[in-house]
Amino acid sequence: MVEKISIILFSGAMDKLMAGAIIASGAVANGLDVNIFTTFWSLLQFKKSGAPKPTLSPDAGNMADLVMKTMKEKKVPSWLDTLKQISEIGNVTIYGCAMFADLMGIKKEDLDPIVKDVIGVSQFVDMSKDAKMTLFL
Amino acid sequence: MVEKISIILFSGAMDKLMAGAIIASGAVANGLDVNIFTTFWSLLQFKKSGAPKPTLSPDAGNMADLVMKTMKEKKVPSWLDTLKQISEIGNVTIYGCAMFADLMGIKKEDLDPIVKDVIGVSQFVDMSKDAKMTLFL
Amino acid sequence: MVEKISIILFSGAMDKLMAGAIIASGAVANGLDVNIFTTFWSLLQFKKSGAPKPTLSPDAGNMADLVMKTMKEKKVPSWLDTLKQISEIGNVTIYGCAMFADLMGIKKEDLDPIVKDVIGVSQFVDMSKDAKMTLFL
Repeated sequence: MVEKISIILFSGAMDKLMAGAIIASGAVANGLDVNIFTTFWSLLQFKKSGAPKPTLSPDAGNMADLVMKTMKEKKVPSWLDTLKQISEIGNVTIYGCAMFADLMGIKKEDLDPIVKDVIGVSQFVDMSKDAKMTLFL
Repeated sequence: MVEKISIILFSGAMDKLMAGAIIASGAVANGLDVNIFTTFWSLLQFKKSGAPKPTLSPDAGNMADLVMKTMKEKKVPSWLDTLKQISEIGNVTIYGCAMFADLMGIKKEDLDPIVKDVIGVSQFVDMSKDAKMTLFL
Repeated sequence: MVEKISIILFSGAMDKLMAGAIIASGAVANGLDVNIFTTFWSLLQFKKSGAPKPTLSPDAGNMADLVMKTMKEKKVPSWLDTLKQISEIGNVTIYGCAMFADLMGIKKEDLDPIVKDVIGVSQFVDMSKDAKMTLFL
């Protein structure tokens, strides 16, 4: 059985989404499958239109501006581009949270096509039970 | 042996507590036991009186107001009510962090009775070692 | 084989670093090895000089001042001192994130010597695959 990891994306902050994409890419580099569950604020960032302007997490403290400037200068790919790239190399599957989508009237077709399906949290917990790690971001 | 998951609640932000309660309920729906360890800012939210007014995590970005308004309109149950409901259906056990409780002079009887016991972090790590997943929120 | 846990430190907020150090110490008390991966904002806090002034996570809400004051009064050791103490008792290994260090021009010698090595995220994912838990802070 192929080994896998799960990542729950909760935050809509750009740096956390980037961390999630980078960890997913590290998992793909190890031949692991990756299941991602996007819920709450991160789900809004997967909207094809009307996604809120991404902010930085306050975990950044007062270094946010310098780091973001450096990332732009060095042309670090966006979290969404990273997810798209690794989806072509490895088994990366992204699920939207049905409860939050329903609450906010978001339909599957409103989301970037990288989101394969909209499922319930219990289904995601079930598919993560035997993952090598499950992270909450 | 019954399978179980562990959730460490650190944040006192309402949306993260809600995410924790929803994940716990997804675990219960899968027949998993759930152990929750409430520490730092989340522990203060379990106080029977004098709990700080819950805030939203900054992960929400500028969507906080709209989402909270929608949750109120659709009468989404509170995180504490969700925890209470699933505790009646499944094996959900909530532990307070002894170190933080001690630091802040909080006693077990100051906490909502849903908190079953106040234990040390090493004891919680020990009971989480064989969990199917351990999340930090 | 010795059992182990992994902790990914992302946040540079003092309370989250403290939570990470306390969980690591709980793991050491259980005889577990601990691997820590410091990336993004937490990596900056391991700099020997020029580390940004640590802030508190907004998860603290309006209780931040009271709790910090109490911690000072009760002389709670800093997160870095806690990590140093438990490193002398148990197998605690701290790795810096190569990608972020590279991005910001940080070299291994710029970091507190408690950081043993600077490695890639895929290497850390690989060493965490068989951990008893992997937490993202």
